[in-house]
Amino acid sequence: MTLILVIVAGLLAVVYGIWQSRAILSASAGNDKMKEIAAAIQEGANAYLKRQYMTIGIVGAVIFVIVFLLLGWQVALGFLIGAVLSGAAGFIGMLISVRANVRTTEAASKSLAAGLSMAFRSGAVTGMLVAGLALLGVAVYYYLLTNVLPVESDRTVIDALVALGFGASLISIFARLGGGIFTKGADVGGDMVGKVEAGIPEDDPRNAATIADNVGDNVGDCAGMAADLFETYAVTIVATMVLASIFFTGGESTAMMLLPLAIGGVCIVTSIIGTFFVKLGKSNNIMNALYKGFVVSAVLSLFAIGGLIYQTVGFDTVFTTNAGLEITGMELFLCGFIGLVVTGLIIWITEYYTGVSARPVRSVAQASVSGHGTNVIQGLAVSLEATALPALVIIAGIITTYVLAGLFGIAIAVTTMLALAGMVVALDAFGPVTDNAGGIAEMAGLPEDVRKTTDALDAVGNTTKAVTKGYAIGSAGLGALVLFAAYTADIEHFIGTATEGSFFSGLIYGGTEVAANVVNFSLSNPYVVVGLLFGGLLPFLFGGMSMMAVGRAAQAVVVEVRRQFREIPGIMDFTAKPDYGKAVDLLTKAAIKEMIIPSLLPVASPIVLFFAIRGIAGVGPALSAVGAMLLGVIVTGLFVAISMTSGGGAWDNAKKAIEDGFTDSDGVLHEKGSDAHKAAVTGDTVGDPYKDTAGPAVNPMIKITNIVALLMLAVLARMG
Amino acid sequence: MTLILVIVAGLLAVVYGIWQSRAILSASAGNDKMKEIAAAIQEGANAYLKRQYMTIGIVGAVIFVIVFLLLGWQVALGFLIGAVLSGAAGFIGMLISVRANVRTTEAASKSLAAGLSMAFRSGAVTGMLVAGLALLGVAVYYYLLTNVLPVESDRTVIDALVALGFGASLISIFARLGGGIFTKGADVGGDMVGKVEAGIPEDDPRNAATIADNVGDNVGDCAGMAADLFETYAVTIVATMVLASIFFTGGESTAMMLLPLAIGGVCIVTSIIGTFFVKLGKSNNIMNALYKGFVVSAVLSLFAIGGLIYQTVGFDTVFTTNAGLEITGMELFLCGFIGLVVTGLIIWITEYYTGVSARPVRSVAQASVSGHGTNVIQGLAVSLEATALPALVIIAGIITTYVLAGLFGIAIAVTTMLALAGMVVALDAFGPVTDNAGGIAEMAGLPEDVRKTTDALDAVGNTTKAVTKGYAIGSAGLGALVLFAAYTADIEHFIGTATEGSFFSGLIYGGTEVAANVVNFSLSNPYVVVGLLFGGLLPFLFGGMSMMAVGRAAQAVVVEVRRQFREIPGIMDFTAKPDYGKAVDLLTKAAIKEMIIPSLLPVASPIVLFFAIRGIAGVGPALSAVGAMLLGVIVTGLFVAISMTSGGGAWDNAKKAIEDGFTDSDGVLHEKGSDAHKAAVTGDTVGDPYKDTAGPAVNPMIKITNIVALLMLAVLARMG
Repeated sequence: MTLILVIVAGLLAVVYGIWQSRAILSASAGNDKMKEIAAAIQEGANAYLKRQYMTIGIVGAVIFVIVFLLLGWQVALGFLIGAVLSGAAGFIGMLISVRANVRTTEAASKSLAAGLSMAFRSGAVTGMLVAGLALLGVAVYYYLLTNVLPVESDRTVIDALVALGFGASLISIFARLGGGIFTKGADVGGDMVGKVEAGIPEDDPRNAATIADNVGDNVGDCAGMAADLFETYAVTIVATMVLASIFFTGGESTAMMLLPLAIGGVCIVTSIIGTFFVKLGKSNNIMNALYKGFVVSAVLSLFAIGGLIYQTVGFDTVFTTNAGLEITGMELFLCGFIGLVVTGLIIWITEYYTGVSARPVRSVAQASVSGHGTNVIQGLAVSLEATALPALVIIAGIITTYVLAGLFGIAIAVTTMLALAGMVVALDAFGPVTDNAGGIAEMAGLPEDVRKTTDALDAVGNTTKAVTKGYAIGSAGLGALVLFAAYTADIEHFIGTATEGSFFSGLIYGGTEVAANVVNFSLSNPYVVVGLLFGGLLPFLFGGMSMMAVGRAAQAVVVEVRRQFREIPGIMDFTAKPDYGKAVDLLTKAAIKEMIIPSLLPVASPIVLFFAIRGIAGVGPALSAVGAMLLGVIVTGLFVAISMTSGGGAWDNAKKAIEDGFTDSDGVLHEKGSDAHKAAVTGDTVGDPYKDTAGPAVNPMIKITNIVALLMLAVLARMG
Repeated sequence: MTLILVIVAGLLAVVYGIWQSRAILSASAGNDKMKEIAAAIQEGANAYLKRQYMTIGIVGAVIFVIVFLLLGWQVALGFLIGAVLSGAAGFIGMLISVRANVRTTEAASKSLAAGLSMAFRSGAVTGMLVAGLALLGVAVYYYLLTNVLPVESDRTVIDALVALGFGASLISIFARLGGGIFTKGADVGGDMVGKVEAGIPEDDPRNAATIADNVGDNVGDCAGMAADLFETYAVTIVATMVLASIFFTGGESTAMMLLPLAIGGVCIVTSIIGTFFVKLGKSNNIMNALYKGFVVSAVLSLFAIGGLIYQTVGFDTVFTTNAGLEITGMELFLCGFIGLVVTGLIIWITEYYTGVSARPVRSVAQASVSGHGTNVIQGLAVSLEATALPALVIIAGIITTYVLAGLFGIAIAVTTMLALAGMVVALDAFGPVTDNAGGIAEMAGLPEDVRKTTDALDAVGNTTKAVTKGYAIGSAGLGALVLFAAYTADIEHFIGTATEGSFFSGLIYGGTEVAANVVNFSLSNPYVVVGLLFGGLLPFLFGGMSMMAVGRAAQAVVVEVRRQFREIPGIMDFTAKPDYGKAVDLLTKAAIKEMIIPSLLPVASPIVLFFAIRGIAGVGPALSAVGAMLLGVIVTGLFVAISMTSGGGAWDNAKKAIEDGFTDSDGVLHEKGSDAHKAAVTGDTVGDPYKDTAGPAVNPMIKITNIVALLMLAVLARMG
């Protein structure tokens, strides 16, 4: 019964998406010039995504076959479902956002409220589709696995769900990275020639990279982000279900496996309700309008989750884990509450570090006055500092939920965090639409005040984009702990149930001894330290590789835009049009080529480390090192990702602050075109790949590493 | 007997220092103009260091009293010895380098070989004093503690040695940070106005910040670095001795405690011999000349350590640790060999990432062609990527030495790494002298070719500086593992020997259970994860704080230099002289004010975390969390520090590459003053606080966190 209601909630999200999409599409798409520009963006985005998915399809097909051969068709099917739905969420989100952009420009030419409404509704479509499809995917496949399809054992159900998460994560890292390289290659490359060299404004139609920049917003910030959050949502729910299946037995296990799905279900309903509260108040404060929607969703969710737990499991009912820990329904509810509080705090902290009016962004703007160098130094300093408070919040979250309900408490808290994904993605997907809307206004030569309106929307979009990334990585940090718990519990389980001569037979779990047949996760085991360091290096290496990819793509764009200025006379006086398609093409090839290697890094790492350490010291140390690697990748990944996304947001809005007129500590006013502005543009450029390519891609990277490790265990367990 | 020889070796280093100092001082200091400039630098450096040490003295006195009250006078005396000697190493190094700078300019006006010889000999004085004083400090105090002074128990000896390390580390973090803020505030601030705005060359006498910049080289890169390496050397030897005292009993314990001292002793001799091989070959390759010295030292050390182990413990003798592990002398020798290999590889990798002719630096130079933004992006990408290979080398070092001889094998490897500190510091301290020499040549208006010679020396100095930092942080990573091992072993020891009612009585060590009275370092213990995350955030927060401090200091310098250009007419046409003293004063105040809070962060963190977790979950989880924190701070600190120091070096040399004439991928030549050069200057500016302030200060930060945790255990053990 619960499962049916969960599926209904998932369908509700899809229906909401269809309904809102129709409403969006029925709005006016502006004049012919605007339509023409929008069509070019649509075409570019479509072409890019198709090629991207084709390439991912090839990699996916290879992995599908491997999964099928090693783990059977049910597991391979799970992988396929995760991959397809994750891709679909991104693709459909993109389809809407490339249509909503021009309509937002048109609406913004009427009023700020109309522009906000159009952009937010487009975001809401993506948001609800992400949450709805993810919930549907997990719930329906779980239903099929437990009721319809033939499965060997409960392990097959778990493996198949984990594979679903793997499929989603794999698409997500490619989409995040490919999209991120595309969008930032265009943005950075375009700005460097346009703004800095030619002295023309952002999104000026004379810049050959403008269409590509707008395409990038859609394929990176919208489709890439949607795939990422789909993955985060699906993996979190799956991980909580896996933990429930390990920690509890019998009826308790079933009830606890359904709980994360049910939480997801009720929160979709509260998120949908919340979207109706996003309305501009009298103060014309856009951020407040968006937050109203979020707060309504969060508060309603609190009551809804309370009601849900009261109804389904009861507040006073005591559940006993296999390890003997007693947990009440009330304690689980409190863990959910903490999850909401963590979400709120992370949003609040991220807004502080990236919002236009707070100290960090002001300090970066102030540092721009003394030049490019000090701007970048201050931005980097802010980016490093911005990691501290979110980490402390996550630490507090871990401690409080663990004290309440052990590891399962942590899992319920993350589930609740993620249950609001529909709403959070709506806030985020709002960003690329407003960004595009501004670009279209500029290119179509609309009056100054339209651009002012879209700029105001865009500045808020920068913050909401940073906020979502903070949220995604924060939840990834907690979620990965759940995955690590699943990894250790799996090892314990496989050792406990190993038959004579099978892979896990003869292994000992726990203690502090270091020996070839002992798996122990003690920090005094040097193989654990090795794993931590190896895991720790992955986000750094991955970040370096993806930054380099953006740098290369951007340099190619710079060369191309400069060539067009040189070889097509008349661009600067509007008598000739640049060849936009060339830049889109060039970036498509570059992004797809560059995304492959870094994306495979987290897939290969657990496997390589396992076999390397097994060769040197045996299976026990190898499994210990891989487990430690999973935590190592979180420990550094969390900080790398938060610092990149917050720092990038701060740089971007410091530039915006100067464009709005920034009065420095000596009382001098700095505006667009000033030296301080030029320095701020440099910072913004540096922040671009930080916040939109490398930083956010760390999130799926962490997950993939964890999931591949879990699947590796499943494969090893089936080995002779 | 061994101890006496060790002390003789330490004295030998001091004698070498005195002898070389005399030789340096007897050389000509050039014309009056040069002497005048050098005097200004000397005065500034003296004034700064005196104030810095006075401020540190106050903090040190407070901590001395606390240590005295909590742990007795022998331990407090150890703290004092460490602090005083660490300060002395820095101070004397500075005294020599501010005198060698002008003599290097003078020598460089004769020949490259003469300039190299002068600068290197000055570095060698600092290097030998660092190694010699550190070895003497530890050896003499150990002698006094075991033969002369009254001590309650063996624990007092260990605590007193650990406190010696603490004293050294405390001075070192202040010196690194204060000196780093001073030097980079001057460098960044001066460059931003001088090079970028006024278009005058680096070190131009018209720039009010030039003298401050040269002062900074001496107080930061020379004195700060010397204190840092003194600390690294002393702490490593102490940590190995502590481990020996814990792992072995009776005569084996004494022999093993002497081994690190003896290794330090023989390597001082081989380092001194190595210094005589630093001579410019026919190819005029400066780097090769320096490497010749290093390679000779390393190869001789290998034989010397082999001979030492053969003589003192014998290759075939089997030592049995208390845990039952059997180690032969041969295995220990192989661990030492691995330590040398790790050193060599880290130097080689760092040189690859920061050397002017390899791919990374070329790629940053190439990225400068498309602008400030791409330069910074590529530099950041290189900085992130540069962490991977050193981490893999360290991982390989951990595994191989552990397989050979357990944790003690790791300790011996680090000891051997550090035993070459005399030589490595010599290479490093060469850097600030050549940097100053160039500045003096510029300010004194010496002919172009003198500046060319000093520039060639300086470019090599950039690489050797990066190399030393990579070496220091690499050894810190391994050394911290040793400290962590000491921490866990201490807890086990204190629990095992706890008397009824004392602090450690009733605690249980090991296993995987999470309870108020259980200390366990398993990754499945959430308090361990909390500790890892908390430790992980420290290098990020610390990095952010120190970057901001440099930013603030630099902005103040920018304002001051601009003011002088504005208010003192005639500076630009050389008819008036800027007020150099004002900039030095301003920076002195800024650096000393800014260094306090970040430096106290690692001192306070273990204590705060311990009491916070103890309040929430009890002593067991608190000790577990603090232990995990020690590893967390290494895991992120290693990567943060390597990325900062290598990235900064790459940026600096990319700028140098363009100044030497860089031909880009399209065959266009870019030189000093070109747009590409301006972009490269921005990158260099960003890299400055990265590589000379935040990055290197992470090394003592890691150590302090570890040592404070060890001392905290000692205090807890004495509590009722």
